[in-house]
Amino acid sequence: MEGEILYGINPVLEALKAERQTLNKILVAEGRHGPPLQALQLLAREKGVPVHARPREVLSRMARTGHHQGVIGLSAGFFYASWEDLQASIRSQPGHALVLILDSIEDPQNLGSLIRTAEASGAQGIILPRDRAVGITPAVIKASAGAAVYIPVVRVTNLARTLEELKKEGLWIVGADSRGERNLYDMKFDPNLGLVIGSEGQGIRPLVLKKCDYTISIPMKGKISSLNAAVAGAVILFEIIRQRLRYPTK
Amino acid sequence: MEGEILYGINPVLEALKAERQTLNKILVAEGRHGPPLQALQLLAREKGVPVHARPREVLSRMARTGHHQGVIGLSAGFFYASWEDLQASIRSQPGHALVLILDSIEDPQNLGSLIRTAEASGAQGIILPRDRAVGITPAVIKASAGAAVYIPVVRVTNLARTLEELKKEGLWIVGADSRGERNLYDMKFDPNLGLVIGSEGQGIRPLVLKKCDYTISIPMKGKISSLNAAVAGAVILFEIIRQRLRYPTK
Repeated sequence: MEGEILYGINPVLEALKAERQTLNKILVAEGRHGPPLQALQLLAREKGVPVHARPREVLSRMARTGHHQGVIGLSAGFFYASWEDLQASIRSQPGHALVLILDSIEDPQNLGSLIRTAEASGAQGIILPRDRAVGITPAVIKASAGAAVYIPVVRVTNLARTLEELKKEGLWIVGADSRGERNLYDMKFDPNLGLVIGSEGQGIRPLVLKKCDYTISIPMKGKISSLNAAVAGAVILFEIIRQRLRYPTK
Repeated sequence: MEGEILYGINPVLEALKAERQTLNKILVAEGRHGPPLQALQLLAREKGVPVHARPREVLSRMARTGHHQGVIGLSAGFFYASWEDLQASIRSQPGHALVLILDSIEDPQNLGSLIRTAEASGAQGIILPRDRAVGITPAVIKASAGAAVYIPVVRVTNLARTLEELKKEGLWIVGADSRGERNLYDMKFDPNLGLVIGSEGQGIRPLVLKKCDYTISIPMKGKISSLNAAVAGAVILFEIIRQRLRYPTK
């Protein structure tokens, strides 16, 4: 599941046409033209995959061959799930879904760790904002110990709107916030939950926070009094798991 | 608290004499001799700080000056606590101590994260084996968000023997082990605890595991079914904190 390089016009075209977009970027050899390449560039624009011109030798070096027809496609090798996939996963656990929403996590280690923990806790899926966060790179997949390929990961354009959609699916939305109104250990969690974790520096963005049904904080001692985002997420996820094990819903 | 370079005979001598050893290594210029340097080398040997000979230019480049008198000392800038410091810290919380014992954690991110979490959970100290694990490097201090300077960190030569010492201080020793005999959420933890976390790949070494009073595992769902060592430690530490908050000991 490492990053891949595709080369040749047809392989790159096929990858562009695939239902789940895996291409991050397309490189074309400088000075290269012609109808097949034009068709490819049109489709790339339509699919939102950036195309850059580079010297032909750069492409040959990256592809480790000269037989690339002046086109290579860079793929993170990762298949994001669709909203419909996630919805189906939520509906497969009526009234007992658990979804992790990661608002702008920038550190690949933390993102990978949160994905691994979510998968280990049996969550139905993970939601990331498309623009504000690191995507699922090979480094993230590695940090997730491979869990990223087992749990649906969805990228969305408007996280606040997605939280509304999750509410329509019957989920309660809980935000983790160091100034949260409720103490984690005073909570009795609803069995149908979306948990929002914000970025380490900034926390959950205000527009996203506003959509949370309530916010929780983890009680702490010590002088630093804050946890790494991946650790905070894990502590809350496993408190949810503990409650589910202690008080199984009928 | 970044790594430091000391230079000149007296600064290095003073650092060697300090109660808490901060020098990792001393470099002397090749071909340099004389009584002051001999005294320094004797003291270094006594304190267990290795001395290496290097070309004079190497020293000048590292010190960014030629005025180093042929001696530089490399310091991690970190003050380890002594066993006596930790003992005093444990005894200051009679019957309610919490000590984290990290058996051979090799990843600086994980070590820093565990130190941060332990500090935030109000633990009295951290114990590391001297030979088998990463020490407190600048990268670890950074990953701990600075918590490493607030919680006593002790390095010991023989972890199994140290666990015996902790038992003499009245602590129960609990090992986190994926094949652990008890489920974390079935536990009622004693308020006087030493928690042992092993390395990600290998877990707790057998000789150390044998000294644990019991072992616990975290119940998991999902296909990966294992947690990052820093996450596993955090989940257990905060379950201990939850119990302390729910059932405060008199």
